[in-house]
Amino acid sequence: MTAPAPPLAGIRVIEVAAALSGPIAAMRLAELGADVIKVEGLDGDMTRNIRSRAPGMSANYVNANLGKRSVAVDLATGPGRAILDRLLDRADVLIENWRDDRNGKLNLDLDTARQRNPRLVVGSVRGLHRGGGKPTRTYDSHVQAAVGLAAEQGQDGQPDFMRLNIADRIAAMALVQGVLAALLARASSGRGRRVSVSMGQAMLAFAWGDIFSQVTIVEDEPAPAPRNRIGMLAHAADGWLCYTPVRNDEWTALCGLVGMPAYASKYPTRDSRQRDSQVISAAFQSWFAERRRPDAIRELLAVGVPCAPVNRPPEVLTDPWLRDEISVSLRDYTGMGTLREIGPMSFDGSAATRRPAPPLGKHTDEVLAELGYSPQQIAALHADRVIR
Amino acid sequence: MTAPAPPLAGIRVIEVAAALSGPIAAMRLAELGADVIKVEGLDGDMTRNIRSRAPGMSANYVNANLGKRSVAVDLATGPGRAILDRLLDRADVLIENWRDDRNGKLNLDLDTARQRNPRLVVGSVRGLHRGGGKPTRTYDSHVQAAVGLAAEQGQDGQPDFMRLNIADRIAAMALVQGVLAALLARASSGRGRRVSVSMGQAMLAFAWGDIFSQVTIVEDEPAPAPRNRIGMLAHAADGWLCYTPVRNDEWTALCGLVGMPAYASKYPTRDSRQRDSQVISAAFQSWFAERRRPDAIRELLAVGVPCAPVNRPPEVLTDPWLRDEISVSLRDYTGMGTLREIGPMSFDGSAATRRPAPPLGKHTDEVLAELGYSPQQIAALHADRVIR
Repeated sequence: MTAPAPPLAGIRVIEVAAALSGPIAAMRLAELGADVIKVEGLDGDMTRNIRSRAPGMSANYVNANLGKRSVAVDLATGPGRAILDRLLDRADVLIENWRDDRNGKLNLDLDTARQRNPRLVVGSVRGLHRGGGKPTRTYDSHVQAAVGLAAEQGQDGQPDFMRLNIADRIAAMALVQGVLAALLARASSGRGRRVSVSMGQAMLAFAWGDIFSQVTIVEDEPAPAPRNRIGMLAHAADGWLCYTPVRNDEWTALCGLVGMPAYASKYPTRDSRQRDSQVISAAFQSWFAERRRPDAIRELLAVGVPCAPVNRPPEVLTDPWLRDEISVSLRDYTGMGTLREIGPMSFDGSAATRRPAPPLGKHTDEVLAELGYSPQQIAALHADRVIR
Repeated sequence: MTAPAPPLAGIRVIEVAAALSGPIAAMRLAELGADVIKVEGLDGDMTRNIRSRAPGMSANYVNANLGKRSVAVDLATGPGRAILDRLLDRADVLIENWRDDRNGKLNLDLDTARQRNPRLVVGSVRGLHRGGGKPTRTYDSHVQAAVGLAAEQGQDGQPDFMRLNIADRIAAMALVQGVLAALLARASSGRGRRVSVSMGQAMLAFAWGDIFSQVTIVEDEPAPAPRNRIGMLAHAADGWLCYTPVRNDEWTALCGLVGMPAYASKYPTRDSRQRDSQVISAAFQSWFAERRRPDAIRELLAVGVPCAPVNRPPEVLTDPWLRDEISVSLRDYTGMGTLREIGPMSFDGSAATRRPAPPLGKHTDEVLAELGYSPQQIAALHADRVIR
């Protein structure tokens, strides 16, 4: 029995994007089976050179560019721009995260591209406008700061950041959703759409139900919500773990297990436990300190208390507890070593498509041949340093 | 000119899900224009009663259930189950986040549903299995702990959590992607697919390029990466702001602006600035303390230093700086007041569909009539307390 085709088989995506949000969105489409062509300059995406391990290849680049084909072309030249036009004329999707709808450096504007190919779905990510007309250089931390995450993550009035490029990554996920929805709509309308994601808006919409539930109802006084103790932490003999007695039966069982049955009635509600969570953690700590973490977890689960180990990143990959949970595959890259790859979901029990990240320009000749360029034309473009 | 149909117009989604991940995934599909029917028990989704403001309505519920229709039915009864079967027979998508593929309480299993309706796309979210066979009760904090986020977010060896239900919300976004991709694939294959999202895997894949770039290359010694100072923080006269001089020209301009030009050559590289970011922050603080935040931001932007205010959640909604950035709409809910709503993206310049969250059972009779139930049959089901 052959595996069914991946869900986006036959969909052609052109990525002309930098940094994180655009490339990640295009990578997700590649994982779903689309043919994603990353158009890079002759020097390649800048992330190729962040702590690179082989010429033009780095973990940073690989982690945002799995499964793509790389075409290296100087878009500032006429013949280079002609290549991009031909790519876009036969594409289903363009992914870009420029500062504006008109890319001066590429002499490319989205309206023209859409007029040439009305079936084209254009997916755009934009940064913060900062009250002015045009978006300015936007880092993930700025979005975290502007839309409330840094304040929420802080403590005692001092802001802090979530230690993830969460705004870039959320914008990418929103973009993928919008592009897929637009492709579905095109199946009946025959026309592409422009999908626009603002990093600020996408981040706010993602966080809304958590951080903004206190301001959802306009008439409510926006009282500062009590800092949510999401889970309780304990240090077992050999490492941290987290336990979360939410329901009353879980709480009663926990108090009995750790030898503090009186706490069950002392803190009868979830709110009372949240309020005094530090007192409770301290009182329960000695039980945890006497046990190895796997044993503590086994005893907690046996009486029905939800819990989990706090794994450091390397431990995540080896924790036997997660063996059935986490699927990481390996691939050898010339000159770099063996790299771990991961995807987010499975279809009918099979992981999504896994293909390597490309060296710079690896597919330039192949893609130009598909566009109808002859071997002589391709050689001439190389000689003129239009492509690489 | 009439607005074009929303991208998922005509797609029918049945949600039989609890808590957060399933309902949020279905809400995103509703926003994109799908007809989402939320099948609830006779007492309704439990989030209806978390700090409710009107009977069965809360900000919590509204924020995860915009744009759906609510059908209240007792699925433990034969006639109730028959209603669900008829809903699934004519549906395009089922969204569920049960503990297992077979839902004992509903006497429903996914294989049977898919056999009855081979075009059905089934989207499932699962929690942590914890090394055993079956998933157990999984809270967001457990996923953050198990897959490395809590360790990364911590400081000085003490774990901390990201103050968002990030794992639930990421699982929802991955599920939406998978379901949309499966709907696209169905357009050519005619057959639905099973899309499975594990909260642990989806969270790990999302965080991979940030938290796990240090362990991407197998042969590398997983040295603890230096704690990433994502942005620098300063306290202006009237509030916090964040500034991020990444490029050398931005750094030089900043040093000149704050009257510390010698720092430009003292810390010539990004790494050196990251290493001593606390020293630098302290040295620059007095410049910020003498200015109001809007003035500091204006001066920073004028010399090209990227920056942003650190807004507390209520400030996000009123900051003039974000006026062109953030689109929040208002809706009156009977007995609750005026509620703010937000969506993540726009299509051809228009925000996605906005429709209210439903009172419990508001659409029971309407949906049953669509399924072919007569008014007499519907009245009898009410009398027998099968529906509400």
